[in-house]
Amino acid sequence: MKIREVRITPIAFPDPPLLNAAGVHQPWALRTIVEVDCGDGLVGLGETYGDAPHLKLMRAVAPHLAGHDVFATTKIQRAVQALVGEKDAPDLHGLTGRSSPEKTVSRVFSPIEVACLDLQGQATGRPVHDLLGGAVRDAVPFSAYLFYKYAAHPGQDEDPFGEALTPVQIVAQAGRMIQQYGFGSIKLKGGVFPPDEELAAVRALREAFPDHPLRIDPNAVWGVETSQRIAAEADGLLEYLEDPTPGRAGMAEVAKSASMPLATNMCVVAFDHLPEAIELGSVQVILSDHHYWGGLRQSARLAGICQTWGIGLSMHSNSHLGISLAAMTHLGAAVPELSYAADTHTPWQLGVDVVETPLRFVDGAVPVPTGPGLGVTLDRDALARMHEDYLRCGVTERDDTTYMRRTFDPEFRNTSPRW
Amino acid sequence: MKIREVRITPIAFPDPPLLNAAGVHQPWALRTIVEVDCGDGLVGLGETYGDAPHLKLMRAVAPHLAGHDVFATTKIQRAVQALVGEKDAPDLHGLTGRSSPEKTVSRVFSPIEVACLDLQGQATGRPVHDLLGGAVRDAVPFSAYLFYKYAAHPGQDEDPFGEALTPVQIVAQAGRMIQQYGFGSIKLKGGVFPPDEELAAVRALREAFPDHPLRIDPNAVWGVETSQRIAAEADGLLEYLEDPTPGRAGMAEVAKSASMPLATNMCVVAFDHLPEAIELGSVQVILSDHHYWGGLRQSARLAGICQTWGIGLSMHSNSHLGISLAAMTHLGAAVPELSYAADTHTPWQLGVDVVETPLRFVDGAVPVPTGPGLGVTLDRDALARMHEDYLRCGVTERDDTTYMRRTFDPEFRNTSPRW
Repeated sequence: MKIREVRITPIAFPDPPLLNAAGVHQPWALRTIVEVDCGDGLVGLGETYGDAPHLKLMRAVAPHLAGHDVFATTKIQRAVQALVGEKDAPDLHGLTGRSSPEKTVSRVFSPIEVACLDLQGQATGRPVHDLLGGAVRDAVPFSAYLFYKYAAHPGQDEDPFGEALTPVQIVAQAGRMIQQYGFGSIKLKGGVFPPDEELAAVRALREAFPDHPLRIDPNAVWGVETSQRIAAEADGLLEYLEDPTPGRAGMAEVAKSASMPLATNMCVVAFDHLPEAIELGSVQVILSDHHYWGGLRQSARLAGICQTWGIGLSMHSNSHLGISLAAMTHLGAAVPELSYAADTHTPWQLGVDVVETPLRFVDGAVPVPTGPGLGVTLDRDALARMHEDYLRCGVTERDDTTYMRRTFDPEFRNTSPRW
Repeated sequence: MKIREVRITPIAFPDPPLLNAAGVHQPWALRTIVEVDCGDGLVGLGETYGDAPHLKLMRAVAPHLAGHDVFATTKIQRAVQALVGEKDAPDLHGLTGRSSPEKTVSRVFSPIEVACLDLQGQATGRPVHDLLGGAVRDAVPFSAYLFYKYAAHPGQDEDPFGEALTPVQIVAQAGRMIQQYGFGSIKLKGGVFPPDEELAAVRALREAFPDHPLRIDPNAVWGVETSQRIAAEADGLLEYLEDPTPGRAGMAEVAKSASMPLATNMCVVAFDHLPEAIELGSVQVILSDHHYWGGLRQSARLAGICQTWGIGLSMHSNSHLGISLAAMTHLGAAVPELSYAADTHTPWQLGVDVVETPLRFVDGAVPVPTGPGLGVTLDRDALARMHEDYLRCGVTERDDTTYMRRTFDPEFRNTSPRW
């Protein structure tokens, strides 16, 4: 089953003004939809970042993949590596750690691998998880992903979630999200306000949701000492503390005294970071993300490493749509090591999607699809509309910092550590 | 596609009197053939050890696997784990490191996983390597696996390879094997004679085959100091030195001064050995073996760990037949990290096999099958004959030591370290 054509379509969809350590989300989130077409109506789907440097690489690589067998994904990976070479496609937000040539290759290959697995599943009549050893769970649990946020982008109407700048508003956001999705655990994106204010929000969440495991992720803007102090104060409060401070050495310092596991999707974001992180004891949980770990099979390899070294496994998310949700669900179904509910930005899409019938959430988990392939179909009208939005929205790269300074806070500086 | 029945058939086939650190091979080598039957003529094949404790576990587990989907191998792995529990099926020879409950589960699951992958391939019309990411090479290289040996078992005719107890005879064995199979590298099973005698054999091989990479494997019967001395004397002679001395700590001591990589299939034989081995720097090459690492996907996970930590990957072999050779070939085809020619006992089968058309060697490598599944078919007449041989041969467990003492050397003692 040979690839005839790989189509690359950048799209944009509305994104609420979510705050994080790098600034605030722009009004449009970007994604790139990858269609691997084998003819005879067989099309596999992948979804990846929409930033200009990454898009440029996707477009440069795509025409050279025709003729490859969709089952020969390791060969395709090598072809991508040869095509991308030592190029680096850095991102501006820095929220998933630094970029590197290795990570760039993994990011370019990932949506192609997912699309090939989708095709393999369609051709063989099996769900993608069956190509990874089969499902070990019937549903993949996700967590409520809370954000500090403004009520609206300048000049726009307020979104349904409204403003969330205080502990009370954060609790209200959690309540709304849990009511709608049934999530059984909660993550707060921090790094926005001074750590004690954010810790107060976590305490408010604990009071309102006494049985929900809680996490906070300040995206490495706390210094080592601040992290140690907050970790001590949060004793018994968190299932894990995500990226309090920058770097594997700094994280290891914090880990020495922290009572809860430290998690990361910043200081361990490629295989070559693992030896040092393990030697230093930097992290006790790794948030995998197939988008930059090089696809589903490489993510399963990461899971094997986590199991071998007794490291917990969770799953990271950026703003995404239904193809990525399906890929995350199949992976989460097949990987026994997934020891925590995964992150997802799905609630922040506000119902927008590029697939016809997105996977649904039931009691905070996505029931694992059992049909062939990923189990989602491209909504071609939506794709066309969202591509038009991409062309006219004026955003070509995620840049939370510049947007923050231009619209909300001219004095904002994306520094780390900040507190 | 559900499992209807798992058939377990122990078989025996003639084995030459090959010498190793544990003694000498008995006249019969044992294997267990696993058939996973889904009805409608769909049968998947696996091959594993034939030792009584292992066979007992295989027979205990087999009836409980009916009803499982053959794509749900991770679920099957968990089922095997639950069925085997904390039971340990130790082996008597000790040549693949100590046994453990974890390794026992992996050994029981492995042939079932291979048979399920064979079935998945048959059902989808794809070779097994395509279920592991596809082939990255057209042929998998194997090495000439030389043994010191007696000319014949007591009371039997001399086998075609004849006696090999001296460097000259070892060179002649290599010549015969290379002429017949075209192998491009050479491994000498050592641990039989004092190390300097075996080093003399390696030097003789170097002289006779100046371009063939060479390895020697004394199965951990050298002390640390002896290993250090021999390693120093073998500087420039070996592509790797396999298991000179027992244990991860001892290997690490030797590795400090050895100029060549140290390899193992004894001190790292399960995932939980890896953290310490990596921390200590015990080994630079791991010989994977899907029979005890838990199948092909777990072996691919091991390959990922090797790649991440910059450890070389080779492949171990015990006496095996054509099903295992096919499984090794598909795995070797799909794993880019395989950095050395794999071991195989194929030449020592002397043409006997349990499959109809065994995979062939061309220029020391096995061309990777491209048909559905493993690409080998059970020879049912051979299976019946070899099962009869099992029943009447009187061997129920591999025990090189007792056989050595009863037949060739009453004074033989399987001690380690010996020199």
